Amino acid sequence: MISDVVPADVFKLAMRRLAAGVTIITTCHDGERCGLTATAVCSLSADPPQLLVCVNRSSRAHDVIKRGANLCVNLLARRHKALAGHFAGRKTGDERFRGGKWTTLKTNAPVLDDALASFDCVVRETVESSTHTIFIGNVVDVRLRAEGHPLLYAGGSYAGLQVIADRRKRAAVTAVVRRPAKRRRSKRA
Amino acid sequence: MISDVVPADVFKLAMRRLAAGVTIITTCHDGERCGLTATAVCSLSADPPQLLVCVNRSSRAHDVIKRGANLCVNLLARRHKALAGHFAGRKTGDERFRGGKWTTLKTNAPVLDDALASFDCVVRETVESSTHTIFIGNVVDVRLRAEGHPLLYAGGSYAGLQVIADRRKRAAVTAVVRRPAKRRRSKRA
Repeated sequence: MISDVVPADVFKLAMRRLAAGVTIITTCHDGERCGLTATAVCSLSADPPQLLVCVNRSSRAHDVIKRGANLCVNLLARRHKALAGHFAGRKTGDERFRGGKWTTLKTNAPVLDDALASFDCVVRETVESSTHTIFIGNVVDVRLRAEGHPLLYAGGSYAGLQVIADRRKRAAVTAVVRRPAKRRRSKRA
Repeated sequence: MISDVVPADVFKLAMRRLAAGVTIITTCHDGERCGLTATAVCSLSADPPQLLVCVNRSSRAHDVIKRGANLCVNLLARRHKALAGHFAGRKTGDERFRGGKWTTLKTNAPVLDDALASFDCVVRETVESSTHTIFIGNVVDVRLRAEGHPLLYAGGSYAGLQVIADRRKRAAVTAVVRRPAKRRRSKRA
């Protein structure tokens, strides 16, 4: 049996390479709403529709999720970069919610009005680990917005998505590449 | 208590918007090596270093992971797009491994030699869900390669990472945008 594990700093350095979509996980219990920016979110099964999130046990939201047994996973777009910063620690408590427009679906968990998608969940199971808890949620409602550019996190920075060049997808690639093309515009003029 | 869940197709449509890094999860038991392409991978805790993966119970790798209690999560780069396709179903059995160079670390799980990072794990706990199992792994070894461009999956397609424009990062953005400029080359000719 192999029992030694790698040092935490080596693990963290390697984990920075796992690019992930950025979400804001919210919850509400007895009128107290909380939220945090998170990338540790996975689809678990489609039928029944379930997802999981890993939340640090030292976070305020952790205890509120446990008490209220509800959470909402809001998938962020690039335009939400500042909001992601607020929920990652730049703001505290209810102040975090000031940078967005919020509503609710079936549970009391706050739903970001213009998220790419929001998954409203009832917590079905919790699995406790040493520092984190895995919350498994049954998805009781979904709100889907028009498609947009997802906000990603990798290597310690926020990032966007780039379509990979493919003959069949050249039009899409051009759309991504066109953005900083001041030179082309001046050629046309 | 809210008991209704959303239909599976609505859930899947919304989940397509969760962009994620692409990995190949491998395992080996009694000389049989298996693997699958997966995006349902999360960091769970840094101290002790743990991650989790969600694996469909109908997959061949699922049973081998259960028996061997080992797995390796290999983070893919853009150059591994074809390999990701092989492990996602274009090839079967040991044929999947032909497109890469493999080694091992502490466990028997195959380690992709040029992955961005590989996490060699001993399975510490399994949590069974309806269609999937959550495997929680203790990270017993890590291999870290030179940094590269991660392979992502979003909206049903493979994609790359785009640095978000920032005054301090303008040089990096230019480097990303320059790539598919075939038209420009033909203009010069």
